[in-house]
Amino acid sequence: MALDEIPGFWAVVPAGGAGTRLWPLSRTRAPKFLHDLTGAGRTLLEQTHDRLAPLVGDRVLVVTGEVHRGAIRDQLPVLPDDAVVAEPSARDSMAAIGLAAAVLERRGAEVMGSFAADHVIPEPERFGASVAEAVAAARDGWLVTIGIQPTFPSAAFGYIRQGEPLPGHPSARRVLEFVEKPSVSVAEEYLATGQYRWNAGMFVVRPTVLLDLLAEQDETFTATLRAIAAEPHRLGELWDTLPKIAIDHAVAEPAAAAGKVVTIPGTFAWDDIGDFDSLASLLGDDDACSILGDPALTQLIGASGIVVPGSGRTVAVIGLDDVVVVDTPDALLVTTRARAQEVKNVVAALKEQGRTDLV
Amino acid sequence: MALDEIPGFWAVVPAGGAGTRLWPLSRTRAPKFLHDLTGAGRTLLEQTHDRLAPLVGDRVLVVTGEVHRGAIRDQLPVLPDDAVVAEPSARDSMAAIGLAAAVLERRGAEVMGSFAADHVIPEPERFGASVAEAVAAARDGWLVTIGIQPTFPSAAFGYIRQGEPLPGHPSARRVLEFVEKPSVSVAEEYLATGQYRWNAGMFVVRPTVLLDLLAEQDETFTATLRAIAAEPHRLGELWDTLPKIAIDHAVAEPAAAAGKVVTIPGTFAWDDIGDFDSLASLLGDDDACSILGDPALTQLIGASGIVVPGSGRTVAVIGLDDVVVVDTPDALLVTTRARAQEVKNVVAALKEQGRTDLV
Repeated sequence: MALDEIPGFWAVVPAGGAGTRLWPLSRTRAPKFLHDLTGAGRTLLEQTHDRLAPLVGDRVLVVTGEVHRGAIRDQLPVLPDDAVVAEPSARDSMAAIGLAAAVLERRGAEVMGSFAADHVIPEPERFGASVAEAVAAARDGWLVTIGIQPTFPSAAFGYIRQGEPLPGHPSARRVLEFVEKPSVSVAEEYLATGQYRWNAGMFVVRPTVLLDLLAEQDETFTATLRAIAAEPHRLGELWDTLPKIAIDHAVAEPAAAAGKVVTIPGTFAWDDIGDFDSLASLLGDDDACSILGDPALTQLIGASGIVVPGSGRTVAVIGLDDVVVVDTPDALLVTTRARAQEVKNVVAALKEQGRTDLV
Repeated sequence: MALDEIPGFWAVVPAGGAGTRLWPLSRTRAPKFLHDLTGAGRTLLEQTHDRLAPLVGDRVLVVTGEVHRGAIRDQLPVLPDDAVVAEPSARDSMAAIGLAAAVLERRGAEVMGSFAADHVIPEPERFGASVAEAVAAARDGWLVTIGIQPTFPSAAFGYIRQGEPLPGHPSARRVLEFVEKPSVSVAEEYLATGQYRWNAGMFVVRPTVLLDLLAEQDETFTATLRAIAAEPHRLGELWDTLPKIAIDHAVAEPAAAAGKVVTIPGTFAWDDIGDFDSLASLLGDDDACSILGDPALTQLIGASGIVVPGSGRTVAVIGLDDVVVVDTPDALLVTTRARAQEVKNVVAALKEQGRTDLV
């Protein structure tokens, strides 16, 4: 199925997040969106752009930290000069996406869709079809979120509870509430009801609608964003006055409570690669050992899990199941898929020790 | 207790063996005796010399492969020029120790003692006391072996079965037989009898006695060794005619059957560091993680076993018990203490793949 470009629709790509649970691949200076974590030969950022370009052409706005501007331009040279908006500092997702909304409002964008730079979606056609439906609903003034069909009771994602169908839109449904990451047992209950979907942070909305919804909660926030868009030279002066808050809390949850949010089902495979355990699941089956890199650099005997030979050295693994071995030129990680979440503790320890060269 | 030099006593140090189960630390070009595996700041070869020098002064003969001559001279610059005998090729322990015997016979050595270059003995005084007793028995014409008091039912060592005490020598006993590496259950039976000791391959004997015992089994073997000692320029011509056989089979076992072998109890701690499991036991207690190298290069969370940060990289290990992580500039090994024996399979695979640069 071919994808048609969607007139008046802009893609916003928040490119941030340290991804400390993917250390030593992901570093502060080179977060996971700059890496090819799937072995596709394209970085997650490049794959995100590949996925969106058919829908928006060059109507793309990447919102990122000043330090990443150069790397992003290097990976996406096709982007127009004004396609990268650099934040002076990280102030969470509401400030980032809100600034994009304010900029696009002035550029006359009809609808914007926010899609993280470091998510994996192997089925671009089905993704595009869901986005097209979301845009149609957004044109009617709704805040639209694409809710991913859960494939297992994950405790790593937030959930969307959906209600009645929305008349006039084939698969859209009202959103009753957004819920935070649940326990696995609660997640199992969610799946049993059939009412819940994963919240992938994909919001599709008219820029003005988003800014007005924010204004209902925090008038100054919206006013400041519009002021920056009107006079970009004031960015440095005004940015640090913006609240640090996630778009879910600032807008999505109150808007849902007010009955102003709808969801479009995302039936495509999706992953945010939260840690090496999910990366291992993404790359291979549980019995074999996934290799992210050149298999000729590995010697595996009775090993399963994931091995990343990333320094050119030969990596030999003997008799370990569900192991995680990540070899880079200056740091080596050895752990298990079950303990993959604790990698962030190593990063925290290195920061405490002042090893900024390694994080 | 101070050690006195033993007049007329020469130390023979066979320095060979690939040590493939200690890859990637031990390599063909740099076997384990050239490495500091105990973190003592001295290599195993240097520690062996440190242990023997008080007993023999400069009466040392190192028998090694031509390829290692330079490295040995670098590590032991105090050795006289004629202290290193280089074999054109490896022909097992009888040829190596037999050649040393023939050379020392011509140099007028009264007694020689053979001690491997890659064994660990933390108690040099007690070692020296046992050697002194062994030399005394050897002067009476016996083939003397130092039998190590077993501390656990090891399946990795051969055993010596001892008989009646030898009159005139306080702790010497007749040797009834040498037995090959047993199963653990058989080893347990050995320990229960109290009759068995570990065979550490330490032989103390008059050079002429050793050569004559060999001649009883293979007259040509002895004749060829004496010919090489008489005319060293014929080494290359004659060496490859010598049988490839271990001294245990060629001399020790038949001599024991003939009642010509005695053993002196070795009550000192001893290890031949067969693999990373025994190295881990040697370095630390089982609950902690032993680090061979700079601890500042490691980040350990819930890890036990042994970590060797040998490339300057930071090594992070999370949630693995009894793990083996060996980091070198060109190769990395990750396994468990229980599977440590299989490291040699990786070396075999690399050889098959023609990766001589890595083995």
